[in-house]
Amino acid sequence: MANIKFTVKNKINSRCCKARTGILELKHGAVNTPAFVPVATKAAIKALTKDDLEELGIEILMCNTYHLMLKPGSKTIDELGKLNRFMHWEKPVMTDSGGFQAFSLGYGMEFTTGKLFFYEDDALGKKDIKNIKKNSGPKLAKITEEGIHFKSVYDGSRHFLSPEESMRIQHELGSDIMFAFDECTSPLATYNYTKESLARTHRWAERCIIFHKKEKTGQALFGIIQGGHYEDLRKEGTEFICGLPFDGIAIGGSLGKSKKEMGEILDWIVPGIPGDRPIHLLGIGAVEDIFESVKRGIDLFDCVSPARLARSGYVYILPKSGGSAKNKFRYRIKNAGFEKDTRPLDPECGCRMCRTYSRAYVNHLFRSDEYLAYTIATYHNLYFILDLMKEIRKAIDENRFEGLMGGWVGV
Amino acid sequence: MANIKFTVKNKINSRCCKARTGILELKHGAVNTPAFVPVATKAAIKALTKDDLEELGIEILMCNTYHLMLKPGSKTIDELGKLNRFMHWEKPVMTDSGGFQAFSLGYGMEFTTGKLFFYEDDALGKKDIKNIKKNSGPKLAKITEEGIHFKSVYDGSRHFLSPEESMRIQHELGSDIMFAFDECTSPLATYNYTKESLARTHRWAERCIIFHKKEKTGQALFGIIQGGHYEDLRKEGTEFICGLPFDGIAIGGSLGKSKKEMGEILDWIVPGIPGDRPIHLLGIGAVEDIFESVKRGIDLFDCVSPARLARSGYVYILPKSGGSAKNKFRYRIKNAGFEKDTRPLDPECGCRMCRTYSRAYVNHLFRSDEYLAYTIATYHNLYFILDLMKEIRKAIDENRFEGLMGGWVGV
Repeated sequence: MANIKFTVKNKINSRCCKARTGILELKHGAVNTPAFVPVATKAAIKALTKDDLEELGIEILMCNTYHLMLKPGSKTIDELGKLNRFMHWEKPVMTDSGGFQAFSLGYGMEFTTGKLFFYEDDALGKKDIKNIKKNSGPKLAKITEEGIHFKSVYDGSRHFLSPEESMRIQHELGSDIMFAFDECTSPLATYNYTKESLARTHRWAERCIIFHKKEKTGQALFGIIQGGHYEDLRKEGTEFICGLPFDGIAIGGSLGKSKKEMGEILDWIVPGIPGDRPIHLLGIGAVEDIFESVKRGIDLFDCVSPARLARSGYVYILPKSGGSAKNKFRYRIKNAGFEKDTRPLDPECGCRMCRTYSRAYVNHLFRSDEYLAYTIATYHNLYFILDLMKEIRKAIDENRFEGLMGGWVGV
Repeated sequence: MANIKFTVKNKINSRCCKARTGILELKHGAVNTPAFVPVATKAAIKALTKDDLEELGIEILMCNTYHLMLKPGSKTIDELGKLNRFMHWEKPVMTDSGGFQAFSLGYGMEFTTGKLFFYEDDALGKKDIKNIKKNSGPKLAKITEEGIHFKSVYDGSRHFLSPEESMRIQHELGSDIMFAFDECTSPLATYNYTKESLARTHRWAERCIIFHKKEKTGQALFGIIQGGHYEDLRKEGTEFICGLPFDGIAIGGSLGKSKKEMGEILDWIVPGIPGDRPIHLLGIGAVEDIFESVKRGIDLFDCVSPARLARSGYVYILPKSGGSAKNKFRYRIKNAGFEKDTRPLDPECGCRMCRTYSRAYVNHLFRSDEYLAYTIATYHNLYFILDLMKEIRKAIDENRFEGLMGGWVGV
C-alpha cells in the first residue's frame, strides 16, 4: 500500500540478537525506531499538556478507537479536522481497531471459557467502572462473522464494530497508522476456540484491506498476528498476515504467562516477518519486555503502563539509582519512608520534574490527592521510557545493544 | 514590626474611589499590588507545575495552615527547609492561621445558632468529605478562651490550635506573611455571639503578637478585623487591630449577603486603617468584588475560586468575548453546545492554553474526566484574574481606574 516509508538503519545480526534501528516516515512526521508509543487513550495523555509531550520528544501517540468512537464520536473528530487538529498534536498518531476494548470490556462473554476475560483498560475512572458493572452481563459483547455487537461502557447503548466499520471510523479519526480489526483472544481461550477465531481474524483482515483500499486515505494499515500461545496457530497467523499487503505487522494477543514464554512466542513469529516491514508489539511496555523484544527485532511498542503506574504512585528508577529487574525498575513514592527524602524521584534522571521536585514533596502530593502528583509522575515515567529507547537506539547503532541489555536486565 | 516594606506608588483620591497601587517587599521578593493571591491549599495549585506558576507571573501564593499542619505536618515542612523549599517555590508565600478550617470544618458546633456553619474549603476531595461525615458531630470543634479543640477531617484525630500554636506552626512553615489567629464568625452568628467572639479575637491578636515578637523569625504578621455584619463591631475591630503593631491588616469574616452590603461593610472599615498598611481582603475573588474592593483601597485578595471554578468546568471570559456581571464573566465549557466549537476558551485571551486548545477539545476532556481538563481550565482562569489585576494596576497608575471598572462592571 506504500503509505509509509520504513528504512532500516542498522541491524545487529548475531546468533541471539536481531535488534535494529530504523526510521518510519509517516504522514505527520518521522519516528525513530525502536520506539515506545505513549497511549493517549481518549486523545490526551493524562495530566500532560501538548508542551509537555513536545518537551518529552514524543514522536508518535496511540489513541483508542473504542473510547473515541463513543466519546466524542469519530464523526465529531472528523468534522473538527481529524485527530491531529482535534487534539492539537502535529506529529504522527496511531489508532487501534477498537476491537480490543469491545471484547475485553464485554467480559463474561459467551464465546470464551466462561471465566472472566482479561480486563485491561487505562481510560476507566470510577464512574466508568460503575457503569460497566451496571451495563455488564453475559452478553455485553457478542461476536458474529460480521463483527462485534457490544454495549458502551459509558451508557449501555448498543454499538457494532466490523472490519469495515473499524476502517471507516479510523478513516474519520485520520490516524497515520491504523490497525486491522481482529479478535484478541483471551489467554484462557482453548486451542479450538483460538483456531476458529484466528481464521475469522484472517477473513476480517482481508475485509479491512478491501475496504481501506477503496477509500484511498493515504493512511498506513497494520495487520495483526493472533494465535494465542499455540505455536502452529502463531506460525499460520504470521504467514497469512504477512501475505497480505499491510504496511506493517503487529503482534497481538496473549504472549504467554512469563518472560520466557513471551520470548518463545516471539521466536515463532518474528523470523517469519519480511525484513522490510515495521513490527509493532501491542500492549508491551515493561523494561525487561522491551529489551527482550527489541533483541528479537521489534520496532514499535505501545503501552499504558508508564502513565498508569504513575497514577498508582509508582515511579521508574534507573539502574544507577537502584532500579533492577527485581524491583521492576520502580518504587512506590506514595509509601511511607519518603516523607522527608529530599532527593529527586531519581537522582540520576535529567527530567524537568527531577530537576524541580523532591520525593518528600511528591510523596505529600500523592498523599493529599493533588493532581500535580500525576503530572509529575507521568512526566517522569514517560521520560524514563523514552530516554531508555534513545539509549537502546544509540546502542544498536553503535553495535553494543547486548552490552546495554546486560547492564540493565542481563542477557 | 517592620518585616515588610510597603510603598504606595499611586493613589486615586476622588470622592468615591480610593484605589491605589503599591509594592510590597517581602523576604522572598516583591509583590505588585493590588494583587490576587492564588491559593495553593495543600502547598500546590491543583494541576499546575512550578513552571506554569512562573509563566503565569504569580508573585505570591497562599497556603493553608490547617491542611499542612495535618498533612504532612508543619514539623516535617520545617525540617525540609520550610514551605518555599518544600514546595520548590522561590517567591513569597502567605499562610492563614488555620482557624478558619478548624471552625468551618467543625460544623454543627455548639457555639453558634445551631444551624449549619458555612462550609467553604477548596482542598477536600470525595474521600475527605466522606471522612468529615464520619468524624463529624456536634463537637467536631470546641472553642475556649485558650483556643480551639478540633478533630482532623482526615482521620478524626484530636488537635488543638491557639494563638501561640498557630504562630508556632506558621513559624515552622516559614511563610513571608502570617495571619493572626482569629475566630471567623458565621454569617448566622447573633450580635451577642459576634461581640463576645470579637473580644476574644482581640485577646488572641495580642497573644499572637507577644508570641511572635519573642521568636524573631522576620516573618510579617497581619492582624484580622472581624465583627460580622455589625457596624459598631466592625469599627471597634478596626480600631483595635490597627492599634496593634501588625505589619498589615486583613479583613475577615462575613461581608454580608450582597455586593451592596459588602461595599457598606468595607466602607465602615477601610477608612479607619492607616494608609501605610497593606490591606488584605480574605477569601474574595469574584470579578465584581475585586473591582468594588480595589476601588475602596484593598491591596491584596486571596481566593480559591479561579481553580475551583475550573474544576467544575467553568472558564472565565473577557468582556470583549461576552463576559459580563450578568454571567459572572464565565461559562461552563462542560456544557453541550461546545462539542464542535473550534474557538479557544476565550478568543481574546492570550494565555498558552487559549493559544493551543479549542473549546471542542476541552469540552471532550471534561466529559471524559481527563486531568488535562483541570490543568487547562485552571491555568486559563488564573491567567484571566492575574491579567485583570495587571490591567487594574495599570489603570490606577494612569488614573483611569473608574473608566476600566465602568467598562467591566459599571461604576
